Amino acid sequence: MDVQSTVKNQIHEWLKNNRDQGVHLLVELVKADSTQGNEKAAQKIVIETLHDLGLDVDVWEQGGEEFLNHPYFVSPRTEFKGSPNVVGIKKGTGGGRSLILNGHIDVVPAGDVEQWEHHPYSGKVVDGKLYGRGATDMKGGNVSLLLALAALQSLSIKLKGDVIFQSVIEEESGGSGTLSAILRGYKADAAIIPEPTNMKIFPKQQGSMWFRIHVKGRSAHGGTRYEGVSAIEKAMIVIKHLRKLEQIRNERISDPLYEKVPIPIPINVGTIEGGNWPSSVPDYVKLEGRFGVSPDETIDEAKSEMENWLLALKDVDPYFAEQPVSIEWFGARWVPGAIETDHDIMKDLIANYQKVIGEVPIVEAAPWGTDGGLLTKVGATPTVVFGPGVTEKAHHPNEYIEIEKVFEAAEIIAFTIIDWCGLDE
Amino acid sequence: MDVQSTVKNQIHEWLKNNRDQGVHLLVELVKADSTQGNEKAAQKIVIETLHDLGLDVDVWEQGGEEFLNHPYFVSPRTEFKGSPNVVGIKKGTGGGRSLILNGHIDVVPAGDVEQWEHHPYSGKVVDGKLYGRGATDMKGGNVSLLLALAALQSLSIKLKGDVIFQSVIEEESGGSGTLSAILRGYKADAAIIPEPTNMKIFPKQQGSMWFRIHVKGRSAHGGTRYEGVSAIEKAMIVIKHLRKLEQIRNERISDPLYEKVPIPIPINVGTIEGGNWPSSVPDYVKLEGRFGVSPDETIDEAKSEMENWLLALKDVDPYFAEQPVSIEWFGARWVPGAIETDHDIMKDLIANYQKVIGEVPIVEAAPWGTDGGLLTKVGATPTVVFGPGVTEKAHHPNEYIEIEKVFEAAEIIAFTIIDWCGLDE
Repeated sequence: MDVQSTVKNQIHEWLKNNRDQGVHLLVELVKADSTQGNEKAAQKIVIETLHDLGLDVDVWEQGGEEFLNHPYFVSPRTEFKGSPNVVGIKKGTGGGRSLILNGHIDVVPAGDVEQWEHHPYSGKVVDGKLYGRGATDMKGGNVSLLLALAALQSLSIKLKGDVIFQSVIEEESGGSGTLSAILRGYKADAAIIPEPTNMKIFPKQQGSMWFRIHVKGRSAHGGTRYEGVSAIEKAMIVIKHLRKLEQIRNERISDPLYEKVPIPIPINVGTIEGGNWPSSVPDYVKLEGRFGVSPDETIDEAKSEMENWLLALKDVDPYFAEQPVSIEWFGARWVPGAIETDHDIMKDLIANYQKVIGEVPIVEAAPWGTDGGLLTKVGATPTVVFGPGVTEKAHHPNEYIEIEKVFEAAEIIAFTIIDWCGLDE
Repeated sequence: MDVQSTVKNQIHEWLKNNRDQGVHLLVELVKADSTQGNEKAAQKIVIETLHDLGLDVDVWEQGGEEFLNHPYFVSPRTEFKGSPNVVGIKKGTGGGRSLILNGHIDVVPAGDVEQWEHHPYSGKVVDGKLYGRGATDMKGGNVSLLLALAALQSLSIKLKGDVIFQSVIEEESGGSGTLSAILRGYKADAAIIPEPTNMKIFPKQQGSMWFRIHVKGRSAHGGTRYEGVSAIEKAMIVIKHLRKLEQIRNERISDPLYEKVPIPIPINVGTIEGGNWPSSVPDYVKLEGRFGVSPDETIDEAKSEMENWLLALKDVDPYFAEQPVSIEWFGARWVPGAIETDHDIMKDLIANYQKVIGEVPIVEAAPWGTDGGLLTKVGATPTVVFGPGVTEKAHHPNEYIEIEKVFEAAEIIAFTIIDWCGLDE
């Protein structure tokens, strides 16, 4: 047996014998509510873990002119005090390829708490599943990365290339945490992001961006509602119109990587708000949502198509000729990204998946954006997305992750680190 | 010429010669933003005016156990500090019928200020129109009442019956101001409410009440929106379903008083709010609105019909069998009311309308509720609604009133006071 195989066997054994440590870490991370602006407590746990692993730790609060004015900067906020990014570096001995392991620490809001069986920040473990907001998206994946690093560290494995672990903020709001890491100088020969792909391998990922649509009505007394124009009813027409655009845009997608994805680039209307008095006809409705961007189009092309489509509302309802809706692109935006399906990092990941799982992995396109678009396009770091957890649970009530998958992913990633960075025997 | 006619001629002259005083008062009242909770400044103007007219003035902040627990008490609030009710009494010499002149001082919010040509609290006068929130609903009508009283006072006209002027809060939220006045003991042989009827005479009025509907969805990541259930899309089905109920309910209305009203008892969806993240499928939407109640049904009958109709949503979309919507009746409620079309107060009002305008007035049913339902049903005071201003402008941006109509209504009401209460010659 070669050294490489011996080391992989040792890692396999180590992960089998250190399950409690991994589960404990994930419970602690899930308990630390890290919604936007509240990331500090969770990052503190990450920092302590990285120190325990003997890594060089870099902690910073993002900001500054270059960053805030960068063309790829998007965020609903410009002040990040109390929301640190964290990087841990395992320096290689030289001569190997470097690898970024990137995961985001921020989670989306828990939503209607009543729809959760266990409290969203309980971290409760039942039947091999760990429950809580962020368990799947993506603290489970982050723990896979940390477990891989812990195994390497505990077994005193030396690598030729650098491994750069990143725990970033703001992925759910467009990736300014990863952008900040790129501007701080962190680049590598490849990157893995363990977002919840359900152990599928995603070389390609949808981009997306947030929109806000303003729909105007005309107020009137509710008792004579026929004298006004309800912005709520007009918003219903707008939403229906968006459904049609979604259909047209998705019919154009022919990449076989999207074969099993029902809607490759969805248009999601996420929030609605309008009217200010029950007895008045509402004169205004605001819609906010997420617009999927194909890897085969630019952000600007996608914006134009949406804007022109909204102008065509006047053909659906002449009212919109008089009162056209307006659109803003705000807050988050995820750049689409893709690497070749036969890129070396893909080959290593596929081979190690087969070694650990004993099956051929599914290679698909991601149904959502990740920070991989930024890493690939802005950071010149070819990125593949692969991780435990299923999208069906991300952003849902009762989000959970199968603990077993966290360890499987840790093993596959640890093996891939060795193959990619190279063992210093 | 009899004394009655002489006096009426004097009133006509007085109103012609005191236009500036009336316009000035209305401008001042409109400038005093009297949205819910902010009524004090406008009431101060009313109090000063009543003192100047030599009336007995009663000012109080409503409250107390009996009031708050009264079956007809409805309000989004239970604390009314800083929101006084005002009554001014012109005591009669005895032997005549008493008359309540009731108007509300509260106005609905201005809504989207950008849709206003002049600022909503400008009180700007252009081409005989006075602009501002509340100009039509119903500070214009209130000024008609005060002008009628001012004419009587200036001309030293003595009446046999009492005249009770009321400037109440909370009409736009269900009439607790008028309820409080009733419980304080203010009742009369008839009442006039100068809501904006466009100078039509309304012996019958729609009731209405506010509802809040909770629609549940199931959250999911927006990138895989097909894995969730959008509460916004389900809310669209609910709104469409409500439209059908509105149609069914209105087809039943056969009273000729409603002949020219397009939708006698509308269902207005006034506000919508749901979702909390652009990239998530919204798991909850809240709708608030106003449900018109026919004078021929009870509040409870109307509630039952709505509640059963919402249960039937499951036949429209099986999803609602699993996740039924829930409904609350909250905040405001206006009791429907009606008096006979040949009631004496109707006869006096119709006769004086003809005298002043020279035409037969239009007698119709009100397309909205007023405090008249409470006065008639709870206060045992038969109430007719008649005033300047048009419903089309109430609750609208660019609300205005034609100043001329304010004076015409003042004259008709002053004449009716004389006929109803009786001149003490």
